[in-house]
Amino acid sequence: MDERLKKQMDFSLEIDKEKNILRQTHLSGHGRRENDAEHAWHMSIMAYLLREYANEEVDISRVMLMCLIHDIVEIDAGDTYAYDEEGLKTQKAREDAAKERIFSLLPEDQKEELISIFDEFEAYETPEAKYAHAMDNLQPLILNNSNGGSDWQAHGVNSKTVYGRQNKTKLGSEKLFAEVTDKIIKENIKKGSLPE
Amino acid sequence: MDERLKKQMDFSLEIDKEKNILRQTHLSGHGRRENDAEHAWHMSIMAYLLREYANEEVDISRVMLMCLIHDIVEIDAGDTYAYDEEGLKTQKAREDAAKERIFSLLPEDQKEELISIFDEFEAYETPEAKYAHAMDNLQPLILNNSNGGSDWQAHGVNSKTVYGRQNKTKLGSEKLFAEVTDKIIKENIKKGSLPE
Repeated sequence: MDERLKKQMDFSLEIDKEKNILRQTHLSGHGRRENDAEHAWHMSIMAYLLREYANEEVDISRVMLMCLIHDIVEIDAGDTYAYDEEGLKTQKAREDAAKERIFSLLPEDQKEELISIFDEFEAYETPEAKYAHAMDNLQPLILNNSNGGSDWQAHGVNSKTVYGRQNKTKLGSEKLFAEVTDKIIKENIKKGSLPE
Repeated sequence: MDERLKKQMDFSLEIDKEKNILRQTHLSGHGRRENDAEHAWHMSIMAYLLREYANEEVDISRVMLMCLIHDIVEIDAGDTYAYDEEGLKTQKAREDAAKERIFSLLPEDQKEELISIFDEFEAYETPEAKYAHAMDNLQPLILNNSNGGSDWQAHGVNSKTVYGRQNKTKLGSEKLFAEVTDKIIKENIKKGSLPE
């Protein structure tokens, strides 16, 4: 097998480990904890189906690829819960080291390409990154809402903390924020499943 | 929320169930059984990274979407193991009913679009479908190979049965068949982990 193909296959096997990285979100039906690979699959399909609501025109293929790979660094760095203030302080350093190790398994051109897509996501500036982040917020929100907000209760977060993150969905889609995100949060506050 | 968006969100929540559909493949590192959502995520990324080896030029975005959605019907129909002869006889009828129920959750235009991509995959005729099927074969093969062929041993399959399915990888990629698939199968025969 030539060197290029060998590297591609090594990377392909390495990313299998992403299926072992557990998130704080639980599957619908009060299921087990979700893992990063499932989350990425789910938000990639949602990105495709909901693309008409992106604030700006997006290259949907790039968004989907961004969704698929955005958590690969967590193979080494672990998942950092959205509302874990201590973990968030060290997240960037942990993820930078992981990025270098894992994407270096690929041939140089593909390493550069995937790092560029990963960095674009992290930078939160392009229409694609903003819309992909909206999916990254919306996907766990609909699962948690389907379970009566139990993930919030488990972590003792309140509506202010949740809005702190979920407000950014507006940057990718005003419509999805207003029609889905905001309504879900308000309903959960009203039902008492999310403290104000 | 308007009817269109409501349907899109209902479908988005419904497909969460795909994460509970277990396959016969085990994760690398002698891990647990893989589920359909993880499998779809994995083969979609592999499709992107290995596209240079497709026999014919492919619309890679269509391939990736095809990979992501090709197992959604298994939410109702269950996973049919590639070498389960009895299950394979009823697979089509089970999957057709599932296809109608699940994709009907979407707005009509998106239902039609996703069914058309699903049907294209099943028909195995276009360059995109052939290449997506190559990924559907290759992804579990590399996991099983990393575990010493234990999935084959658990099901008592032999190299003839395995080649019966894996030979079709050629239709999508001669190169990947020759350089990866065939080499993996031959090595496993040699090591005694796959009976001839």
